[in-house]
Amino acid sequence: MSPMKIVTNPAEMKNLSITFQRAGKTVGLVPTMGALHQGHVSLIKTAQRHCDIVVTSIFVNPIQFGPAEDFSKYPRPFESDCSAAEQSGCDVVFAPAQDDMYPSDHATYVHVENITSALCGAARPGHFTGVATVVLKLFNIVSPQAAVFGQKDAQQCLVIRRMARDLNCSVKLLFAPTVREEDGLAMSSRNSYLSAQERRDAPLLYAGLSSAVDLYESGERSAARLREAIEAACRRATQFSVEYVEIVDMNTVSPLATVRSPALAAVAVRTNLTKTRLIDNVVLGGTF
Amino acid sequence: MSPMKIVTNPAEMKNLSITFQRAGKTVGLVPTMGALHQGHVSLIKTAQRHCDIVVTSIFVNPIQFGPAEDFSKYPRPFESDCSAAEQSGCDVVFAPAQDDMYPSDHATYVHVENITSALCGAARPGHFTGVATVVLKLFNIVSPQAAVFGQKDAQQCLVIRRMARDLNCSVKLLFAPTVREEDGLAMSSRNSYLSAQERRDAPLLYAGLSSAVDLYESGERSAARLREAIEAACRRATQFSVEYVEIVDMNTVSPLATVRSPALAAVAVRTNLTKTRLIDNVVLGGTF
Repeated sequence: MSPMKIVTNPAEMKNLSITFQRAGKTVGLVPTMGALHQGHVSLIKTAQRHCDIVVTSIFVNPIQFGPAEDFSKYPRPFESDCSAAEQSGCDVVFAPAQDDMYPSDHATYVHVENITSALCGAARPGHFTGVATVVLKLFNIVSPQAAVFGQKDAQQCLVIRRMARDLNCSVKLLFAPTVREEDGLAMSSRNSYLSAQERRDAPLLYAGLSSAVDLYESGERSAARLREAIEAACRRATQFSVEYVEIVDMNTVSPLATVRSPALAAVAVRTNLTKTRLIDNVVLGGTF
Repeated sequence: MSPMKIVTNPAEMKNLSITFQRAGKTVGLVPTMGALHQGHVSLIKTAQRHCDIVVTSIFVNPIQFGPAEDFSKYPRPFESDCSAAEQSGCDVVFAPAQDDMYPSDHATYVHVENITSALCGAARPGHFTGVATVVLKLFNIVSPQAAVFGQKDAQQCLVIRRMARDLNCSVKLLFAPTVREEDGLAMSSRNSYLSAQERRDAPLLYAGLSSAVDLYESGERSAARLREAIEAACRRATQFSVEYVEIVDMNTVSPLATVRSPALAAVAVRTNLTKTRLIDNVVLGGTF
């Protein structure tokens, strides 16, 4: 095994990827914003199972953050990220500079309409345009055979799937299951923001979603009653303000009254003290 | 020489292009809306000089037409287009169906900001989003090493160049000079709409642009005086209403007061009887 490479220049990354592919090797891309945790490790390992070479991009993408969001305080532990990536089997870390990704006269944005208006898209205007734009740029720089995304960011998965289809991208998309702490909390780089009390309440999101799954499996199809199970759990988290609890169609991302499989049950809260945004989801009656 | 192929299915086109490239052949793309004329022939021949295989796409792209524009009446002489393409040295005509390019839940659009707000972008809201979106789709379907566009659609060239840079596309862009009738009229599929009188006046656009070039070459740098030379010619065309006469910066596409090379002198008119939109341009002090 050769040591992991760290590439910052997009043109160099493009050439490196071409070199791999000319040598007959397939390339898997894991786009991340760094602050790697076990969820990212599982994405890297998924890429490794499907491709000869794993490229992990580490780029805190400014255009997917709103003006009042946590872009500047987002954690950037680059050295330990590189160690974690290498130990997980990553072959190349691609960590471009912001100015190389977005020169001052950058003017091109990829908008995915309709399915971005609900859930996180409603709370974070422009967020998914930022995501779609950077992911398309990464696809074009790395030209991977496969790219791996975490199901924890469920709407992001659906947006990228739609974008890739609509723009005829050739990359195979893989959506890896959410990795959780022992108490059920979905792993997220933002969990590090939580206060001790918020951290204690945080597993209630998944507890609520799990109740909804149990109800669904016992035959409940009313979205209102499934939502209520999630909301009841969120009410027990006295430190949280609910942003949304929704049961949506997996293709249209529009709210359902009655669940027809597969549907996405999704929740977002903001914590009262540290103002941390937490999201989680489960798929009812299907998979990604 | 093997006979020209006609491909309608995007997945089949993608596979065919991969097959060419695996065989070590480079692919050049000429995106067109059909109704091929000598201008298109020159694009095909340019592609042929740079690449082993020439793919000409023929697709009247609905999303680049406004609701009051000529989408439905746009000429579609498919049989004679195929003959013309083949005679020009084209290897593959890619002519997808509208539903294959835009399924009913198509939701993804590529917006290029700023440089699309002046000139044709002002008169045709959404036009360049439609152009950028379809061109990116074609790039992803054909994955060409080079793509050729006509300088007659100057702002389109600048928009595609910006998009390709911003989205890290790997394709080499070639911009071929405008091909003109003997009297100077820029070749265009829309020239067929003109009445006899409009056709007689149409060369005045290029006459005006040529006067501006002469003035520029004799040292004139005032955009107002250069514009006036073009406007004077347009006034002689009594059948035309001027939409814009502008001298703009080649990078920002914003109007200049004083010309610093290279600048784009561009004109658009609409004819009074047949409501045909004619555009033309020249570059002052430089090239594309």
